[in-house]
Amino acid sequence: VCQQTGFDMSDPAQLETVRRQFVLKSRPTGVPKPDDFEMVSTPVPDLEPGTFIVRNAVIGLAPATRLRLGGESSYMAPTPLGSVIYSQSAGVVVASAHAGFALGENVALMDGGWQTHARSDGSNARKIDPTVAPPSVWLGALGVSGFAAYAGLKAVAGLRPSETVVVSAAAGAVGAAAGQIAKIAGCRIIGIAGGGRKVDFVRATLGFDAALDYRSSTFRDDLRAACGDGGVNVYFDNVGGRVTDAVLGVMSDFGRVAVCGQISAYNATGSAGGPDWMPVLTKRLTVRGFMIQDHQDLQDDFIRDLSVWIRNGSFKVVEDVIEGFENLPAAFIGMLTGANLGKTLVRLEEG
Amino acid sequence: VCQQTGFDMSDPAQLETVRRQFVLKSRPTGVPKPDDFEMVSTPVPDLEPGTFIVRNAVIGLAPATRLRLGGESSYMAPTPLGSVIYSQSAGVVVASAHAGFALGENVALMDGGWQTHARSDGSNARKIDPTVAPPSVWLGALGVSGFAAYAGLKAVAGLRPSETVVVSAAAGAVGAAAGQIAKIAGCRIIGIAGGGRKVDFVRATLGFDAALDYRSSTFRDDLRAACGDGGVNVYFDNVGGRVTDAVLGVMSDFGRVAVCGQISAYNATGSAGGPDWMPVLTKRLTVRGFMIQDHQDLQDDFIRDLSVWIRNGSFKVVEDVIEGFENLPAAFIGMLTGANLGKTLVRLEEG
Repeated sequence: VCQQTGFDMSDPAQLETVRRQFVLKSRPTGVPKPDDFEMVSTPVPDLEPGTFIVRNAVIGLAPATRLRLGGESSYMAPTPLGSVIYSQSAGVVVASAHAGFALGENVALMDGGWQTHARSDGSNARKIDPTVAPPSVWLGALGVSGFAAYAGLKAVAGLRPSETVVVSAAAGAVGAAAGQIAKIAGCRIIGIAGGGRKVDFVRATLGFDAALDYRSSTFRDDLRAACGDGGVNVYFDNVGGRVTDAVLGVMSDFGRVAVCGQISAYNATGSAGGPDWMPVLTKRLTVRGFMIQDHQDLQDDFIRDLSVWIRNGSFKVVEDVIEGFENLPAAFIGMLTGANLGKTLVRLEEG
Repeated sequence: VCQQTGFDMSDPAQLETVRRQFVLKSRPTGVPKPDDFEMVSTPVPDLEPGTFIVRNAVIGLAPATRLRLGGESSYMAPTPLGSVIYSQSAGVVVASAHAGFALGENVALMDGGWQTHARSDGSNARKIDPTVAPPSVWLGALGVSGFAAYAGLKAVAGLRPSETVVVSAAAGAVGAAAGQIAKIAGCRIIGIAGGGRKVDFVRATLGFDAALDYRSSTFRDDLRAACGDGGVNVYFDNVGGRVTDAVLGVMSDFGRVAVCGQISAYNATGSAGGPDWMPVLTKRLTVRGFMIQDHQDLQDDFIRDLSVWIRNGSFKVVEDVIEGFENLPAAFIGMLTGANLGKTLVRLEEG
C-alpha cells in the first residue's frame, strides 16, 4: 500500500480499528522529559457525518508546540492533561463522510496530532499534491515552516534586494527557509546556529554567505565582522534572548526585526529577561511579532513561489526524519535541545 | 530690559563680554555628581560673518542628555571632556552678523548649551513668537518635548480615537504631553510614574484617567486592573526596563509601542537586560524606536495644533522651573533622579 497515492478501501484488512496516541501525562518543567508523554491505544473515532478519518503517514514537529505544554494561557491554547499532543501531520483519507474529501486523497492537517489516525471536519485540512512534493515537504518547506519564513520576510520585514539579513536558529526548519528565501531575493545572508555541525550545515548545505556559532566565545566579534560597517537591515528572529541581544547591537539605523519565535524562552522556568532595548531607540528599529495565521492572504503566492524554487533547485528542502511513531517524544526533545538539521519529521511505520 | 521683547543695543552697558559655561569635567559613573561639571568663564565668542550671539534666558533639560556624558558612541554625539554641556535654550539675539536673525529677535537654539551666551550660524536656531507663548514653552510643550509626544503618537504609534494608551514617565515633560495629546484625541489614558506626588500630579493636574505608581508592590496588579480586559492598544514608552516589561504583559493583540526614551538605562552601568520579549511574539506587537529628527514633516502641524490646544485650555503647560544659572547641575541631577514635575527648566538671572 502506498500512502502517497491512496488507500485501497476494498481490502478490509487495512481498516485498523485501534489508533495509537501520545497524550500529555504531566506538564514539563524546563526541557520536557520522555515521562511527560504517555502512549495510549484508543479506538479509531467514529465517522460522524461531515468528517473523515486520516491515517497519518508523517508528523511534523515545531518548537512552539512546547508553549502548549505549559499550564499558563498563551497565544496557543494549552494542551489539557490526558489529551493528544498537538502537531501538524500529513496522510491519506481512509474513510470519509465529508463531501469535500474523498477516500485516498492526500491531506495535511494543521492539528493532526501525535496519533496514527485523526478525525477532521475539514476546517484544518488542506489537500496536498504529492506530484509537486512528497507529503513531508507539505509540513515543512511548503507548510508552516516555509510559510512563516516567507510571510515574515515579505509582509513583516518588508525585505528588499541587496539587504543584509541575519537569521537565528538558521539550521532549523524556519531559519533554513528564511535564509534561502532571502538569498533568492538577492540579499546577503548571515546565519546563527549552535555548534560546528550546524554552522557547517548552514554554510555548506544551505549556502548562506556566512554562518556563526552563538556558543563561541568570540560570537559578538564574529557577528560584528560578518555584518560589516553597513550593519544588519533585517533580522529574522527565531530564538530571542542573548542571540537577539547581540544582533540588535549590529542593526543598521531603521532596521527591521521580524519576531517569528523565541525558542530560548520556550523551556525557561520564569522570565529570564529579554535583550537590551537601547538599540530599539537609538537605531530607530521596528520590531514586529507575527503569526502565520495573520497572513493567509499570502498563501497562494507562497505555494506558487516555493514550488518553482524547489523545482528549479534554488531552494533546498532539508529534513531531519526520525522513523517510528514510538520515537515522537525523543524526536521532540531532541529538536528542543538542538539535535535537528532542518525540519524535524517523524515517519510512521507503514499501516 | 525685557528679554522676551528685545534687547536694546543702544545701551553698551548691556554688552557683556564674559560668558559663563558649565563644561564636562569627568564622565559620570551611574547618576552624575555635581563634581562631574565645572563652571568656567570664557569670553563671549567673536561675531564671525554669518553668525549671531544669543543671550540665553532659559535652558531646557532633557534626560537623554545623560547619554552624551558617557564615553561610548551613541546615537547622540558624546560631549568631549572640557566642552559645554548640551541642551536646548531660548533667548534673545544680542549681536548679529547674520542676514536672517536680527537684534532683539527671540530664538530657540537646539544646542544652546549650559551657557549664558551662545553663538549660532542659524542652522540650529528657530525664531519663536513670544505672543503665542513665553520662551520656556518653546523648549517644552511647543519644543522638543511636546514634539516627541506628538510625533510618537501620530506617526510612530498611529493613534486612533477611543484607544487605551499607557504612558510611562507620565509626570515628565514628554509623558505629560503624550498623555494630554492622546486625551485630546479621544483616548483613555493611563499614566505610570514614581511615587505618590507624581501619581497625584498625573491624575489631578494633568487629568489622566488613571495613574499608577511603579514603585508600589501591587504595581502589576494595579496595571492589569486599570487596563481592563481589552488591554493596551498603544504604549508610549519613555523608560524601558521593568516598567515596560509590565506593560508588554497587558498589551492587546496587535498593540503598538512607540519607544521615545529609555530613562531606566541612561544611568545604568552595563546592560541590565531588557523586558521579556515573549509578548512581542505572542501578541504580535509592533515596537518602534524613533527620534524627532526623523519626523520634521510634522513640525507645522504640531505647532498649529499645540498652539490651539494651549490657547483653548485643553492642553496644560507644566513646567518645573529652577532659578539661577549656577543651579544647572543640581536641576539636571534632580530630573534624572525623579524630582521634576513637567518640563525641567533653568531660568537665568536677568543680564
